[in-house]
Amino acid sequence: MPESSLSGGDTALVVVVLVISLAALAFAAYLVKAVMAADQGTVRMREIALAVQEGAAAFLRRQFRTLGFFAVVVFLLLLVLPVADGGWETRIGRAIFFLVGALFSAAVGFIGMTLATRANVRVAAAANAGGYLPSFRTAYRTGGVVGMITIGLGLFGAALVLLLFDETAPIVLEGFGFGGALLAMFMRVGGGIFTKAADVGADLVGKVEAGIPEDDPRNAATIADNVGDNVGDCAGMAADLFESYAVTLVAALILGQVFFGSVGMVFPLMIAAIGVIASIVGVLATRPAKTDASGMAPINRGFFTSAAVSLVLVAAASFIYLPSISGGVDMEVSPQVLGFVAVLIGVVLAAAIQQLTGYFTETSRKPVKDIGRSSLTGPATVILSGISLGLESAVYAALLIGGAVYGAFLIGGAAALYAVALAGCGLLTTAGVIVAMDTFGPVSDNAQGIAEMSGDIDEEGARVLTDLDAVGNTTKAITKGIAIATAVLAATALFGSYNAQLELALEDAGDTAGATLQEAFSLVNPNNVVGAIIGAAVVFFFSGLAISAVSRAAGRVVFEVREQFRTKPGIMDYSEKPDYGAVVDICTKDSLRELATPGLLAVLAPVAVGFGLGFGPLAAYLVGAIAAGTLMAVFLSNSGGAWDNAKKMVEDGAYGGKGSEAHAATVIGDTVGDPFKDTAGPAINPLIKVMNLVALIIAPAVVSLSVGEGANTTLRVLVALAAVAVVVAAVVVSKRRSVVVGGADAVPTGDRLTTSAP
Amino acid sequence: MPESSLSGGDTALVVVVLVISLAALAFAAYLVKAVMAADQGTVRMREIALAVQEGAAAFLRRQFRTLGFFAVVVFLLLLVLPVADGGWETRIGRAIFFLVGALFSAAVGFIGMTLATRANVRVAAAANAGGYLPSFRTAYRTGGVVGMITIGLGLFGAALVLLLFDETAPIVLEGFGFGGALLAMFMRVGGGIFTKAADVGADLVGKVEAGIPEDDPRNAATIADNVGDNVGDCAGMAADLFESYAVTLVAALILGQVFFGSVGMVFPLMIAAIGVIASIVGVLATRPAKTDASGMAPINRGFFTSAAVSLVLVAAASFIYLPSISGGVDMEVSPQVLGFVAVLIGVVLAAAIQQLTGYFTETSRKPVKDIGRSSLTGPATVILSGISLGLESAVYAALLIGGAVYGAFLIGGAAALYAVALAGCGLLTTAGVIVAMDTFGPVSDNAQGIAEMSGDIDEEGARVLTDLDAVGNTTKAITKGIAIATAVLAATALFGSYNAQLELALEDAGDTAGATLQEAFSLVNPNNVVGAIIGAAVVFFFSGLAISAVSRAAGRVVFEVREQFRTKPGIMDYSEKPDYGAVVDICTKDSLRELATPGLLAVLAPVAVGFGLGFGPLAAYLVGAIAAGTLMAVFLSNSGGAWDNAKKMVEDGAYGGKGSEAHAATVIGDTVGDPFKDTAGPAINPLIKVMNLVALIIAPAVVSLSVGEGANTTLRVLVALAAVAVVVAAVVVSKRRSVVVGGADAVPTGDRLTTSAP
Repeated sequence: MPESSLSGGDTALVVVVLVISLAALAFAAYLVKAVMAADQGTVRMREIALAVQEGAAAFLRRQFRTLGFFAVVVFLLLLVLPVADGGWETRIGRAIFFLVGALFSAAVGFIGMTLATRANVRVAAAANAGGYLPSFRTAYRTGGVVGMITIGLGLFGAALVLLLFDETAPIVLEGFGFGGALLAMFMRVGGGIFTKAADVGADLVGKVEAGIPEDDPRNAATIADNVGDNVGDCAGMAADLFESYAVTLVAALILGQVFFGSVGMVFPLMIAAIGVIASIVGVLATRPAKTDASGMAPINRGFFTSAAVSLVLVAAASFIYLPSISGGVDMEVSPQVLGFVAVLIGVVLAAAIQQLTGYFTETSRKPVKDIGRSSLTGPATVILSGISLGLESAVYAALLIGGAVYGAFLIGGAAALYAVALAGCGLLTTAGVIVAMDTFGPVSDNAQGIAEMSGDIDEEGARVLTDLDAVGNTTKAITKGIAIATAVLAATALFGSYNAQLELALEDAGDTAGATLQEAFSLVNPNNVVGAIIGAAVVFFFSGLAISAVSRAAGRVVFEVREQFRTKPGIMDYSEKPDYGAVVDICTKDSLRELATPGLLAVLAPVAVGFGLGFGPLAAYLVGAIAAGTLMAVFLSNSGGAWDNAKKMVEDGAYGGKGSEAHAATVIGDTVGDPFKDTAGPAINPLIKVMNLVALIIAPAVVSLSVGEGANTTLRVLVALAAVAVVVAAVVVSKRRSVVVGGADAVPTGDRLTTSAP
Repeated sequence: MPESSLSGGDTALVVVVLVISLAALAFAAYLVKAVMAADQGTVRMREIALAVQEGAAAFLRRQFRTLGFFAVVVFLLLLVLPVADGGWETRIGRAIFFLVGALFSAAVGFIGMTLATRANVRVAAAANAGGYLPSFRTAYRTGGVVGMITIGLGLFGAALVLLLFDETAPIVLEGFGFGGALLAMFMRVGGGIFTKAADVGADLVGKVEAGIPEDDPRNAATIADNVGDNVGDCAGMAADLFESYAVTLVAALILGQVFFGSVGMVFPLMIAAIGVIASIVGVLATRPAKTDASGMAPINRGFFTSAAVSLVLVAAASFIYLPSISGGVDMEVSPQVLGFVAVLIGVVLAAAIQQLTGYFTETSRKPVKDIGRSSLTGPATVILSGISLGLESAVYAALLIGGAVYGAFLIGGAAALYAVALAGCGLLTTAGVIVAMDTFGPVSDNAQGIAEMSGDIDEEGARVLTDLDAVGNTTKAITKGIAIATAVLAATALFGSYNAQLELALEDAGDTAGATLQEAFSLVNPNNVVGAIIGAAVVFFFSGLAISAVSRAAGRVVFEVREQFRTKPGIMDYSEKPDYGAVVDICTKDSLRELATPGLLAVLAPVAVGFGLGFGPLAAYLVGAIAAGTLMAVFLSNSGGAWDNAKKMVEDGAYGGKGSEAHAATVIGDTVGDPFKDTAGPAINPLIKVMNLVALIIAPAVVSLSVGEGANTTLRVLVALAAVAVVVAAVVVSKRRSVVVGGADAVPTGDRLTTSAP
């Protein structure tokens, strides 16, 4: 075993990393200033922006209150649960850093969203006044802020834990990663339900029933729709990418310690610090040029610049810092080569996913064109072609991700899991730029909404904003692909940690670890096949719950807007103002209520499997969830993205343009795709990580109740049954309030929502 | 190790089983006579029936020609591939019984379909003349024939192999099961594409474009639609259930030998023989009574009678035949209890799936009602609610199936896999009745089509046929659920065989088997995670390919029918007859062309994974495919079934009835569901089995190229690359002919199909 505590020189290096993480935050502050200095546009624009700001902030405040309670419960549970190695201070450290991780995740989401709701109006104003360049710059810089905060806080947290806890850092890091992932999952689900309930509801009652265009101020759901862009696509996504970053780092540190001790823990932090530098360069390099064919060109330039800088610096770090021969670990290549090639695999994977996602979701490519053409035979063929496209694209993405894991496995030898984790770090060296391009999406979308609603936009400005919005659609799809790739890499790597925890726990329980584990982990055990089936089932269940939550909440939005049209007849001729706040309120309440069931499922399903069936089936459960989750996440994201762009294609004039039958067919496709791509699909990434971390955290408890003196089958089964009971109760309660989108008779009068303004 | 060859007494028992299997065939012959004796209806009915008969027979003939070539290739490969244990005669036996399995599978499909295309008109005639009772009886008896042939041939084949090959029977049985599964998969896919291309095409151009009702004789696609019911729902399904039966028996025999020798092989045959008796009783007990609430009542009665008879006889067989103490196998219970309880688990699982599927797809239950209500807000909400319902129902089905496997695992102790296989046998003791109720579906559907087209039906007769058709929809959904359950049980059990083959092969290669295998099979190896991801990916890919094949073929049907309306203007006022043969021809050619890609994928993907990544990842691949496949199969089948019945609900008058906006919305849902429930979904069952059997068959070759003296990495990788290359080529070729359903411009003139009559 290599020395597992930090050497003196390594401590100094970690301090340097800590400083670099603060530099990322400083650069974020600089960008904020630049964004806020921009012009805020007309009075009407500011009014609308203010309503969006208030709605979004109110939602987040309420969401944090709800989640705060939940976080405290988990905090207490973490204090109770045993750790495999380490005493009380490790256990307390893990619980406290769980809160820190959750707080950071929330902070990234909150800051990102707060800035986005201020940047949107500035982007709109810039489009009017200055045109493409300043508009693009403001939107992208806003993204840059979120990117820098994401990597800054992630790196800061990881480095701090390492300095404070040294050799017990890995266990404390579990808590940090878990806090980030759990909060992110809830924000993804809650924000995702909010945004799509508002969007789908607004479309159904506005475009379909009342025949008024998107973002029309007469539609009471428009403000909620814009709020949704911020709480879902912006806050939820930012928190999600923060946790992807944090959990990947955590996995690399844990495994680094196992295989290479101090050096193994410091190297991932160095890669991440290099990522900060590369991302700053990338953000600064992203500026549109006159010769660009589309808005994607400067964004790609920024990404590839950042990737190139990373690779050069990582190569230098590998060959200077890492040893040229491995001390005792059976490897195919030297640690230097391992370090560099693993990171290279991650960087290449990010680029490959970017290309693949672009191919399947860009308006100019064959797949989206095929869907567009299928609109000529109506909505059914639009749905079918989108679904088969989504299924197929998921396969290619899964093969790319699987190929990356396998590549890391091949070079890694005995340290294969560490190589997989390093590939994850490689995937995220460009995280700063990736987050920046993602946040670009909702900001542009919102800018267009505000401009449209205010009416204060000239033709040239409108064109600029439409272009930015289309670019945003593609960047959003790309980030989802990369996020799910991080989930697979981190989860695969974390198996190493799961294994190590079990070994320690089994030794504690007086068992000869090796044989028991190998037997328990055999793929061909029938109970493990059952575990894998349940793992895949949870992914399907989670997706189904998220989609039906959106349907239910959208139904309520439809009823409310209809009711407003009925009771305020002046809305249609602009003589009365709709009550926007009422719809925001419905979306807020419903999404917070609806996130409970999928959230509890994610946390409690691994508990039920682990305590109920054992640690072997729990590992199989995770494998099943990873396999099905990867495919499902990409399927949902890409089919949704492709439907959205097929609609845009028809709106741009193809097959009869706006108002044609073909348009109606693609609008239906887009509506089906909404909860696919913005609620269920992206939430699978944090879902997988949450389940992996829950498994890691409960592993010692499962072992102590299963093996040796402390074995207690009754208690073990009782815990499992309690977990199942809570999930079943949550499902039953959510069925009870099942209000299917439909006629007015579908709302039971006693259940009518109050419609006070927020 | 128990004695692995048959004892004298056991040989006599197997001969008795053989005789019972012949009795099943004799009972089938008796039922055929009864069906054929019924009245054939009016001249117009006979004319239509004749066209359907000819189209269906022509399709099957061409399909068998295509598949015959493929079967010969596989036959030759089987002669070349090494077997782990046994000499040349075993290898030749396996290859020959591969052909026998394929032939039996084809025969079951062919005979079932031939009879169904003769029974349909008789059912229609009986509805007119005698009403409900004779109509029901003829339809159900037709199903009974198919059921009896299925179990008769399956049992005959298995018993024959055991008598001829004795202790090497398990390896020969692999061939028998593989032949059945491979043929069934192709027939499921080919028939599934045919039936849904015709159905979707007919609906799009008839109901949607021309505004004429379903089964209207002016629609050139109607005969093809009726042919499709027979080649897909009837021939494909019968072959599929035959292979489910055969593969489950094969798995039980293989494992029986491993754990209990002679007794272990004979006991599953006894269960199956008991199943024959129970099924005959069940079929005879299925007769409508005056007091029945619906057509489901007598069918349920038949099923439960059959299940009760089975259980009583199996209990007797277990306690008389099986030993009361296990000889050397470490078990929780006695072999007697093991035998009976495992079969009981299977029978209960069949009943539970029946109830669950009924809940999610019957018109009178909440889920379908919810979908119906969502039609008030348009097609998008119909699609979304159907998808979330499908996802959810898949989870419950997966939990039931997983629970059954786990239950068998718990009682099985060291012989857990055998217990799982016996549960599979239990699931299929009622196979005769299950097949009967399934075949009931397409026969009733066809009878309604013929009656409608001929115009020779009175109101009372039409009502009878509509009722029968609705019952058929539910029974079809139930069978799909049970079929996928057999896939999981058989596949899980076959892991035991996979394991045993590898052990033998590793010993041959001079390796210390135990350690290598346990290491290779560890769930937490990154390469195994990759294997599981690829396994799930193949399920998604296969589903996507099947769905897009239907879209493409349906597109051609639409163009053809449109063209006929244009060139034969007299069609609309009945002065000209459409060319039905042309559409049948298109469906035939297209479905045979389209089945190649998914078929090659199923056979070659495990080859690529096995040779490319190794036998550990191949096992993980199978686990990934089982987990994702179970969920995907039930999801696709149930959402499709629910959409279909939601449409029926609106057609029966809910939410405005026929012609309303709500109706249009549910028609779109039904169209999306068509390839879900009748092409992609049900084909996943044989897919899983084919992949498992391919893995089993290539295992020794993989080992001999990986380990010991014969190790040859270059050759191994070359084989994998060749497999990948063939699949990629097939995908590329099928993309080339990609004709998306859309405007006329979508058909390249050079690619225009000839439209000669069949």
